[in-house]
Amino acid sequence: MTKPQRIEPRTLKGFRDYPPEVMIPRERLMETARKVYRSYGYAPIDTPALEYLEILTGKGSDETDKQLYRFKDHGGRDVGLRFDLTVPLARFAAQHAQQLGLPFKRYHIAPVWRGENTQRGRYREFVQCDFDTVGTTALASDIETVLVIHDLMRAIGFERFTIRVNHRGVLNGLLETLGLAECSTEVLRALDKLTKMGADKVRAELAATAGASDEQSDKLLAFAGVTGSAEEVLAIVGPLVAGSERGEASVTRLYQVLAGFTAAGAEADRLRIDPSIARGLDYYTGLVLETTLDDLPDIGSVASGGRYDDLAGLYTNQTLPGIGASLGVDRLLAAMEELGLVGDARTPADALVVFFAEDRLGDYLKLAASLRTAGVGAELYPDAKKLGVQLKYADKKGFRLAVIAGPDELARGECQIKSLATGESTTVPLNEAPATALKLL
Amino acid sequence: MTKPQRIEPRTLKGFRDYPPEVMIPRERLMETARKVYRSYGYAPIDTPALEYLEILTGKGSDETDKQLYRFKDHGGRDVGLRFDLTVPLARFAAQHAQQLGLPFKRYHIAPVWRGENTQRGRYREFVQCDFDTVGTTALASDIETVLVIHDLMRAIGFERFTIRVNHRGVLNGLLETLGLAECSTEVLRALDKLTKMGADKVRAELAATAGASDEQSDKLLAFAGVTGSAEEVLAIVGPLVAGSERGEASVTRLYQVLAGFTAAGAEADRLRIDPSIARGLDYYTGLVLETTLDDLPDIGSVASGGRYDDLAGLYTNQTLPGIGASLGVDRLLAAMEELGLVGDARTPADALVVFFAEDRLGDYLKLAASLRTAGVGAELYPDAKKLGVQLKYADKKGFRLAVIAGPDELARGECQIKSLATGESTTVPLNEAPATALKLL
Repeated sequence: MTKPQRIEPRTLKGFRDYPPEVMIPRERLMETARKVYRSYGYAPIDTPALEYLEILTGKGSDETDKQLYRFKDHGGRDVGLRFDLTVPLARFAAQHAQQLGLPFKRYHIAPVWRGENTQRGRYREFVQCDFDTVGTTALASDIETVLVIHDLMRAIGFERFTIRVNHRGVLNGLLETLGLAECSTEVLRALDKLTKMGADKVRAELAATAGASDEQSDKLLAFAGVTGSAEEVLAIVGPLVAGSERGEASVTRLYQVLAGFTAAGAEADRLRIDPSIARGLDYYTGLVLETTLDDLPDIGSVASGGRYDDLAGLYTNQTLPGIGASLGVDRLLAAMEELGLVGDARTPADALVVFFAEDRLGDYLKLAASLRTAGVGAELYPDAKKLGVQLKYADKKGFRLAVIAGPDELARGECQIKSLATGESTTVPLNEAPATALKLL
Repeated sequence: MTKPQRIEPRTLKGFRDYPPEVMIPRERLMETARKVYRSYGYAPIDTPALEYLEILTGKGSDETDKQLYRFKDHGGRDVGLRFDLTVPLARFAAQHAQQLGLPFKRYHIAPVWRGENTQRGRYREFVQCDFDTVGTTALASDIETVLVIHDLMRAIGFERFTIRVNHRGVLNGLLETLGLAECSTEVLRALDKLTKMGADKVRAELAATAGASDEQSDKLLAFAGVTGSAEEVLAIVGPLVAGSERGEASVTRLYQVLAGFTAAGAEADRLRIDPSIARGLDYYTGLVLETTLDDLPDIGSVASGGRYDDLAGLYTNQTLPGIGASLGVDRLLAAMEELGLVGDARTPADALVVFFAEDRLGDYLKLAASLRTAGVGAELYPDAKKLGVQLKYADKKGFRLAVIAGPDELARGECQIKSLATGESTTVPLNEAPATALKLL
């Protein structure tokens, strides 16, 4: 007999499996996000993973174009896997604008694919978790976007976080007052490097690319380095942009966002004005925002976004302004793990019902069903194996309770409920098992 | 000025967008499925959409091979998009067997892709929703699989449904007693056509392909056509397989599944033994099951599955038996819609907070936040437009309540809560708005 040829079970480079202990907190995070998004009236949508290639290459940068997974489908069409959820949103909004009605508030949680260089520690498949309000330039939408992130951070369990906002018009206003309005791209690019390269190098770059004088660079660096409470920063930035209509309007908008944030009951301390935030050069046009965890600043922003003037100009002549943000799912999960906000259970059920006496299967099934009816997740071990084997399984999987009943206990109408954390156990009548389990959880 | 070139916003043939009114019930269904799966200890996993081509073509049939979306990735690897969740489960179980521990209970809800002929009304991207217990041949797992479907149907809101089970060994036992054991494939193939083609044509095919005599065909057709309660069917089928060890054991197993189903508190009427269920020719080896809705029999099975001997033989020499089933997500949603189990709301929020007085934005934000804190989803209309515009928006989106407060009402610390179904409205103090809204929902 020839040995059957085995295929090596492996995942593609840059891709990963999500086993239960990883997937359980991921699902919980997604559920929390959905719950908060919904509470603000954002509605779910989904779009195909595959799109016409022209849809995807139309909007992306050279870098995303290069990373696109593209091929010809069975009908010879040029197609690609989506690399983000913004391009599909733009295509979707343009295609269905009539039926949707504006403003249109949607969330979208789905995988995207990029043929990235995996040496940078990046994955080629990852989940994005976006929410956007399309079709309005309203202040209320700016405030709501910040509030959603605030509520979400708290719902996840983070207490020490800071939402950092800026307005693209503030810097543009400053550039107007400095007479550097034509060089905004060069200035933004230089200032973006402040944290990494330091003031001297940025000063040199400002001189080289934007022709900035020392005095102009001083003001730009002073602006980018402003710190303090939101009120303090605005009090410093306001005078710097005085005389620029756009600059003044943008500072006013930031004051209004701050006022709305606190009116809704959020703590003012959790919102900061940070003039160093730019978030890319072209796409965003108004409020921009990032979110950092006070205990893990190095992890970077865990929720970022901003306001744009024109979502779908490539696909429609209808101008669709909007504002949105995206959760950094992998960063959030890493942070939650580091801060002890996730467990390591490999099971979503609370209790393992130990299967002892083979001829009493019906009793165990009934017991497990009564636990579930009470809201206690209950797995019945499928085989009548030794207690030790089943308790080892319970331990490995991370069950919190074991419900144990041998033939004698069943005959007396009783079972033991054992806490696997403390090892303590209580004997109770079978019909009280659900209430006792609930108490122990 | 030249007009900018627009790209036509469109989805690929065979693909579809899910707008809010479609996605809201889909998400609710997935959440119900997750909740029931978890309550039995099934844990979530996810796997990459892209796999090495050899993983996917190893297990699939010629038909799935032909439908595979395949291409070369950036590294020149032959890759493909998964066409189901069973092959990835087999690969996953083989790859991680050591760390997982057996039995391994997982659910997996994710999209799959098949380059199907769309003329058959099929989509090229659809969501599968599977659960499996891997690594045990236990009776308890058979019973639990049936119970999961039972609980899920009820949790969705179906009351009139029938889970139809069979055991592959029953027919094989009958074939043994008839001396037709060598022709099981031919017989299965012929019997599978009974509903479509009628008894005479099946009789002819049985004679032609399996060489069955009239007497043999009579018994096979009598067997396939048996009806009645589970007990009645078993009482008829039992004697037909008497003498075949496998047949007798299979009938016993069906009796035990029935006993376990009712022991767990399910109504016996909801489980039927249906000898006509075969579910494919090769993969399943034990219990097989389908689920039909009594009010919509033509829609076909909405949850199907069965027991297999060897999940991952292509990828490992470890024998992994198991049992699992899959929800027909699109069929279930179509049925839910037809039976009035889904609404047509385009928003997941309950209440629209009307934005009246532009200078009172803070009051509206506070009001909306208080509703959310009480568990009432509340969207704030972003612009201070006319009441009529906002109520039309509320109506189009399907909000159930509008919360309305003009400057005078705000000055008095009051708001109106209007039911959009009945048109009735109540004026209450602002701090009682959440409680009143909850009462009206």
